[in-house]
Amino acid sequence: VPFEPHVPWLSEASPVRRYLVAVSGGADSTALLHLLVNAGFGNLVVCHLDHGLRGSESAEDAEFVAKLADELDLSSDIACDDVTAVANETASSLETAGREARHRFYADCARRHDCREVLLGHHADDRAETVLWNLLRGSYGAKGMRPRQPLGDLTLVRPLLGIRREELRRYLTERGLAWREDGSNAEPFAIRNRIRHEALPLLSSITGRDGVPALVRTAEAGEDQEEILAWALDRAEVLDPQGRLHLPALRELPPALQRAAVFRYLHRHGIVDLDRSLLQKAVALLDSQGETSSLNLPGGRYLRRRAGRLLIE
Amino acid sequence: VPFEPHVPWLSEASPVRRYLVAVSGGADSTALLHLLVNAGFGNLVVCHLDHGLRGSESAEDAEFVAKLADELDLSSDIACDDVTAVANETASSLETAGREARHRFYADCARRHDCREVLLGHHADDRAETVLWNLLRGSYGAKGMRPRQPLGDLTLVRPLLGIRREELRRYLTERGLAWREDGSNAEPFAIRNRIRHEALPLLSSITGRDGVPALVRTAEAGEDQEEILAWALDRAEVLDPQGRLHLPALRELPPALQRAAVFRYLHRHGIVDLDRSLLQKAVALLDSQGETSSLNLPGGRYLRRRAGRLLIE
Repeated sequence: VPFEPHVPWLSEASPVRRYLVAVSGGADSTALLHLLVNAGFGNLVVCHLDHGLRGSESAEDAEFVAKLADELDLSSDIACDDVTAVANETASSLETAGREARHRFYADCARRHDCREVLLGHHADDRAETVLWNLLRGSYGAKGMRPRQPLGDLTLVRPLLGIRREELRRYLTERGLAWREDGSNAEPFAIRNRIRHEALPLLSSITGRDGVPALVRTAEAGEDQEEILAWALDRAEVLDPQGRLHLPALRELPPALQRAAVFRYLHRHGIVDLDRSLLQKAVALLDSQGETSSLNLPGGRYLRRRAGRLLIE
Repeated sequence: VPFEPHVPWLSEASPVRRYLVAVSGGADSTALLHLLVNAGFGNLVVCHLDHGLRGSESAEDAEFVAKLADELDLSSDIACDDVTAVANETASSLETAGREARHRFYADCARRHDCREVLLGHHADDRAETVLWNLLRGSYGAKGMRPRQPLGDLTLVRPLLGIRREELRRYLTERGLAWREDGSNAEPFAIRNRIRHEALPLLSSITGRDGVPALVRTAEAGEDQEEILAWALDRAEVLDPQGRLHLPALRELPPALQRAAVFRYLHRHGIVDLDRSLLQKAVALLDSQGETSSLNLPGGRYLRRRAGRLLIE
């Protein structure tokens, strides 16, 4: 009997429902597609964005995916985007430009095929690498990729987060199923590759055990913390009816929750470059005996204390 | 002007108050001691535990510390413990046996000198290494060492968590102050050393920037999350007057907070080997339609659902 990874999502979801499946042609997303088809999912739209990053190889990836969809008797939606040009125009990294191009493409596919859920082939190793990568960026909480992630009108769904990279390759190999090596043109590149091929093996060798499960547990704990924070902020009722921060309510909270409430308020008003020292200064405005009642924010805006409120101007 | 690290704690604390200072003789704790004395702290008791791990070198460390305290006109309390023997007797690791021996020693010092606060020389690099180490163990949340940490009747205080290892060495070197190289007999050993000398440099080289500040931010975020969780559990009011979990209250909570409430309840009842799958099973007991009303816990105990409560037996 060939090896079959256990993917709980496949028995929880409805096989007749329509889903977009993002397939790069690499082993992970190719395995996802076969797993779906073998589990009886038939109403799938195979989506592939050629990032144009690897010349003729990119085009061959796109061809491979189109042909695979055809063989599996599925619709496909294949598009091209010049990610390098976009990155140059917008002065962003290839990674950022690539991610945004994919998200635009998924949104287009969602409209064209009247379907809001995009299935992605990310697995446990990807998740572990993301935890480590976020950690090295010092991002707030060690968030990893989530099983379900809202993205505008879309929901990104990752059925394979419990499965290891090796298991997906084994699944394909034992069935003689083909994929495109390095078909993950979606992912630039050097940092993630070094995390995968250098950092994780070193960390596993230091502790004498596989680092991926531990990092996955961290990702799960991070999701739990987000859920608890959302509940706590909701309970804390820090906004007045006009949506401004209500100081008497805010002052009742422990400092960490004050920072989180101010963070969320500023974030929702488009202030995203928030570091801890800025949050500390914002929270210092709570002190009505304090000398300052106003704080400069990035983008030329201000956070002001006025009439028992904190508000952005 | 010789280099002086900025240590906010020194201006916030009272210099006439009595503190225990744990001094191994290594650069970090030696620098802490000099910083304290130079800031006018005079009521210090220098505490040193010889772990007996490095033979005559350990004894020389103890001598160095005793002499240093003498030169600085401070009391000292120097003791010996055979950590290797304790580790063998209790079948625990040298790291665990060493930590427990230190904690017992601090508690003894606290009684002898009537002082509950122990100052430790841990710095930002230690904190970053701890985050990474906890992460690799998959410990719940990426907790690092905290600025103030209750420990029984004691409080461990770490004034140098904002300072880099390099800064402390520079502080000593520029003043011609001596320390014992490898005087950190307190710390076994291989894993932490590899994290310090291999993992952190590799991670910094991958991202092209110093990994320590990012990991320190993670530690701070972890502390915030603990504070928020404590507030949320308090607000959730899940315990009945007898201290058992009250199911109607528990059922109102999001799953992450249910798991956290059950985790805390079990932890307080001495069940410490808690993984996520056990917590999931415990939370499944909430379902009064569920087939099972009881769950086996480590140590031969049970968690039972009865009369609208979850309780341990």
